[in-house]
Amino acid sequence: MGTIASWPPSRRAQLALTLEVAGTPKPGNVDRHREYDGLRFEHFLAGAIGATPGLEAAADPSVPLGVAFESAVEGMACQRGGNTQFGALLAVCPLVRAAVRADGAPTGPSVDAVVDRTDVNDAIAFYRAFDHVDVAVGAPPPDFEDLDVRRGGGAAETLRSRSITLAEVMALASDRDGIAAEWTNRFQRCFQAAEVLVNGEGPVLQRAARTFLELLADEPDPFVALSHGEAVAQSVTDRASALHRTEADIETVESFANSLVRRDVNPGTTADILAGGLFIALSRGLEV
Amino acid sequence: MGTIASWPPSRRAQLALTLEVAGTPKPGNVDRHREYDGLRFEHFLAGAIGATPGLEAAADPSVPLGVAFESAVEGMACQRGGNTQFGALLAVCPLVRAAVRADGAPTGPSVDAVVDRTDVNDAIAFYRAFDHVDVAVGAPPPDFEDLDVRRGGGAAETLRSRSITLAEVMALASDRDGIAAEWTNRFQRCFQAAEVLVNGEGPVLQRAARTFLELLADEPDPFVALSHGEAVAQSVTDRASALHRTEADIETVESFANSLVRRDVNPGTTADILAGGLFIALSRGLEV
Repeated sequence: MGTIASWPPSRRAQLALTLEVAGTPKPGNVDRHREYDGLRFEHFLAGAIGATPGLEAAADPSVPLGVAFESAVEGMACQRGGNTQFGALLAVCPLVRAAVRADGAPTGPSVDAVVDRTDVNDAIAFYRAFDHVDVAVGAPPPDFEDLDVRRGGGAAETLRSRSITLAEVMALASDRDGIAAEWTNRFQRCFQAAEVLVNGEGPVLQRAARTFLELLADEPDPFVALSHGEAVAQSVTDRASALHRTEADIETVESFANSLVRRDVNPGTTADILAGGLFIALSRGLEV
Repeated sequence: MGTIASWPPSRRAQLALTLEVAGTPKPGNVDRHREYDGLRFEHFLAGAIGATPGLEAAADPSVPLGVAFESAVEGMACQRGGNTQFGALLAVCPLVRAAVRADGAPTGPSVDAVVDRTDVNDAIAFYRAFDHVDVAVGAPPPDFEDLDVRRGGGAAETLRSRSITLAEVMALASDRDGIAAEWTNRFQRCFQAAEVLVNGEGPVLQRAARTFLELLADEPDPFVALSHGEAVAQSVTDRASALHRTEADIETVESFANSLVRRDVNPGTTADILAGGLFIALSRGLEV
């Protein structure tokens, strides 16, 4: 008794979020050895714990999922670092709900059901979440300016008149946003990360760091592409791939991590996917 | 709205426990830059979050305080590092209850009321907490072998026949155990730490590290005295005092921290008091 897998899903989600930021080295991201001037380690701890009411709401099927997510973001914004875990919560909240449906670890069918059941009210609440914190996002495609997430709660009428679901909002953004793509691909990369975590060896935070590198080696980070362009995102992934393939020693990965932080190159989406993977892995019995 | 001071006290306690372990350098203790082979950073994160049910019980005046503490320790023991926060929880649980009484931050009178209301059932539950995790403690005084905490739940009958309260148990141990002394001195050093934290400058984790050094400079750590003898405890405090007085640069404090970890000298009680101080400070409006 008392195993982490038997905890309420909201508590497993808190732990997943804190383990995500603690894992080191996670090249380019805040981790327990690296931080940016205005975005520090403690902001992520407070963000993870501040998100609790929303995570609890995500575990309560009577609360619309979009509303739970908005609440999680509002709680996350308790700290002064700004956006710490918007993307991570966007991955973790539906996984928490899927875990409740599956009565254990999220499964493919439970994730499908959660995504497919979203409606226009979830979409509206998702837009409102952008009112609580500054999130770096790209412009919408030319024909979708009125669906720009930066409109926040102001987009409610547009969303309602188009009666667009949250799943549809994600589908529209999935070629530019990595977490939107996860929704559309039914959290395929989060499940893949969970496999690597569960089947790995050694302390959980070493597994987390290795999983991060593997995810980064697999696909260019969409957030790096947004902030620095596709070429930089590709070069980061090429380097991660070389380090992962050759099982580079920790010093070499640390040095890569330092160089990315110096250039402010922050593969944030990859970290968000790791958070989702950690949640699934803890739900499957990964011990700490 | 949404400020940390307005959170439920149990959530503020979670954050206090995670901030405590994250603060660095905290010479000799696990922090986010230093850990021991079998006692790692992630064990403290999982311990803090695992303690949630007990922290919530501590905030519920209908649950005996000793039972809440036992539940917190049982939850803390979800991870494989062993004893991470027994002492910190022994400081934080009564402060959480005092915060509820005071409807805000703990105060002197609310702490008095919480300590004075403990009874023999609290004492019995406190002893049972030792059944959940190995805690390094010293032998009891010669006339009190039957009150050895290492008897755990087995001491219930003795406690009942003597009808000794938890506050009395603490008083008996207060010359050897720093948290027992806090109970007896009504959490004087936790309140002192909170003052330093609230009135300090800079990011909260820098304040936490400076407060730790100041606490260590003020008094030899009882846990170091127990594990390595009074002379070592005094020498650690003398060195901390010199570093604190001269406002030594971070590299010098880091080097002191490394030397203590190498010698396995772990001022754990000082860290527990810092956790209590962080809880009070967050309750008074310290921001992250």
